[in-house]
Amino acid sequence: MSDRTVHTAEWAERALAEAAHHEPASREEQVLERIERARRRRPKITEERVTLAHGAGGKASRTLIEAVFVEAFRNPVLQPLDDGATLDLGTGRLVFTTDAYVVSPLFFPGGDIGDLAVNGTVNDLAVCGARPMYLSAAFVLEEGFPLADLRRITASMADAAERAGVKVVTGDTKVVQRGKADGCYVTTAGVGALERPVTLGESQVRPGDAVIVSGPIGEHGITVLIARGDLDIEADLTSDTAPLHDAVAALLDAVPVRMMRDATRGGVATVLNEVARGAGVAVTVDERALPVRPIVSGACELLGLDPLYVACEGRFVAVVDGDHAEAAVTALRRHPVGEGAAVVGRIEPGPPGMVLLNTAFGGTRIVDLLVGDPLPRIC
Amino acid sequence: MSDRTVHTAEWAERALAEAAHHEPASREEQVLERIERARRRRPKITEERVTLAHGAGGKASRTLIEAVFVEAFRNPVLQPLDDGATLDLGTGRLVFTTDAYVVSPLFFPGGDIGDLAVNGTVNDLAVCGARPMYLSAAFVLEEGFPLADLRRITASMADAAERAGVKVVTGDTKVVQRGKADGCYVTTAGVGALERPVTLGESQVRPGDAVIVSGPIGEHGITVLIARGDLDIEADLTSDTAPLHDAVAALLDAVPVRMMRDATRGGVATVLNEVARGAGVAVTVDERALPVRPIVSGACELLGLDPLYVACEGRFVAVVDGDHAEAAVTALRRHPVGEGAAVVGRIEPGPPGMVLLNTAFGGTRIVDLLVGDPLPRIC
Repeated sequence: MSDRTVHTAEWAERALAEAAHHEPASREEQVLERIERARRRRPKITEERVTLAHGAGGKASRTLIEAVFVEAFRNPVLQPLDDGATLDLGTGRLVFTTDAYVVSPLFFPGGDIGDLAVNGTVNDLAVCGARPMYLSAAFVLEEGFPLADLRRITASMADAAERAGVKVVTGDTKVVQRGKADGCYVTTAGVGALERPVTLGESQVRPGDAVIVSGPIGEHGITVLIARGDLDIEADLTSDTAPLHDAVAALLDAVPVRMMRDATRGGVATVLNEVARGAGVAVTVDERALPVRPIVSGACELLGLDPLYVACEGRFVAVVDGDHAEAAVTALRRHPVGEGAAVVGRIEPGPPGMVLLNTAFGGTRIVDLLVGDPLPRIC
Repeated sequence: MSDRTVHTAEWAERALAEAAHHEPASREEQVLERIERARRRRPKITEERVTLAHGAGGKASRTLIEAVFVEAFRNPVLQPLDDGATLDLGTGRLVFTTDAYVVSPLFFPGGDIGDLAVNGTVNDLAVCGARPMYLSAAFVLEEGFPLADLRRITASMADAAERAGVKVVTGDTKVVQRGKADGCYVTTAGVGALERPVTLGESQVRPGDAVIVSGPIGEHGITVLIARGDLDIEADLTSDTAPLHDAVAALLDAVPVRMMRDATRGGVATVLNEVARGAGVAVTVDERALPVRPIVSGACELLGLDPLYVACEGRFVAVVDGDHAEAAVTALRRHPVGEGAAVVGRIEPGPPGMVLLNTAFGGTRIVDLLVGDPLPRIC
């Protein structure tokens, strides 16, 4: 993280020095200065209580993570805030990751909380470059939860584990009184082996790299939202929940990959902001290149949502060497989960920390981290 | 597990053959036959909904685990149902474990959900013979939960991690609406290295071994119960929550250890039943040897509880070579968490699966797995 910080600070200093020569400062320069000031501030939570926004993956989540969790657990393994932690155990490198699943409803077209909990953790291991191997599963059950539903969930976990080639090897169950949970929450953790000699992460990203999305976006989020039944929409749509490890391995074999992240809570927009901020670069995205099925863009229009922010559970964003962008897409398209892969954008030197969308209408707009949570409990 | 089953079946066959020579069958023989019949039956859940008893660590928990989780995730690593799973990664052996924490209240004398979540997972790794190294932490937060409380919890997790020499390296946070949780649930998973060439487990237990408890029992459970404030009891008692890895390492260095388990939910009685059933042996316990502080036995009497079933969070049960029982206690007593260690019982060949308590009054009673849950949400 310190490398990036230096990089960004230098960039800002240059920008400010240049600005001093061209008084009055341009709007862009003023914006940059504001960004830099914000970056130098320690993250600080102004709220006194947890809000749904703290769980949404956007700005509030980031502040909560940095001000509370990183502050408390400060250590170099945690610091990169990747999808998983890379552990060097002397005898070999492992990736270790965890996610809690609280999706509502528990069952939805194309999946349920069970396969979500397996695929999500498998995917976090995969995008860190590891071969997913072992999972743990901890359940918090609400008193009165139907055992038939629990069996259905564990059966779909077992199926998902089989498909992903992982084993659920340890677990725990707690039961809380009625009204102290919402049926069933599942937390999985995963361990995978880092067998490839590749180094992945935001620190590897550089201007000229290409940004790839592995398939049509937003299908999981919209499916869950419609499954809640309080919208007057019907759509023939299923969740994209799927294990990504095979497609990820194919990509790693085919081209030089800088980093990957699965686009879950907060969607592709949130991943791209993490890339831009983490790497101290800008990401430009071509709206016309974004793979979005008409049924998803239609539902998003009706709901006032931007598909860029809607969660996927079987899609990932990859930053690859710009010269190998087409080879990357070709490699991904050989896999069912990567059939709709597309080059959607490019890494630029600056303005650092910014994601810029070139819209279908010829304009450019900033794609920022979300402040609120339009879609609570989507995963 | 199959070894044990064979052992038990042979034992029962002998018992039944002997019984045939001495008609009518004695009461003990009838009991044994009933036990054997029950053992041969597949676990079956008769309830249609989850009850608090399913989370209590007793009979219902065991049935839930065997009928639902083991049934779904069936694999040889999960099968022993130990506190952690031992993973052979080619390059070295690891232990991987997880636990969900739902204790109520979140803060109690001597600790809170935070250090409980760290110590609990550290202890699960330690009693599996591993050096605890890395933890993950996943939070399910209720909308409206005070951030000051979250900071207090993460601070005590950080302190506990520091004391245990582990790092929290990855995590996740989800937020659910008001009324869908109870403030804060924490799930930790842990990874530790198996560096000693020792094999631990119920399969190592044999008649003549000694049963050791590492310190006075029941303090955590009674402390939490009193902290709930709906009893008219005041007691100067604090939770025993503590990391056990140092005491465990000292024990492993000192004597031949067969198996260890921390006595959390369900208390020492539940661990002893797991030993008896898992190893196909009997465990006899001397009530007068059990370390119980007068304040705990007094509170238990008032509450109608048996301290043998009350959760500890910083105590473990060890089965060691019978010839080294005193050396084991001496090694443990050198550590603050083991100061009150005592030899409390002995492994006998049969009746297999039974825990028998020689009471202070000279009688003998069966200590069975609990059916209900007298103490929900104690950890």
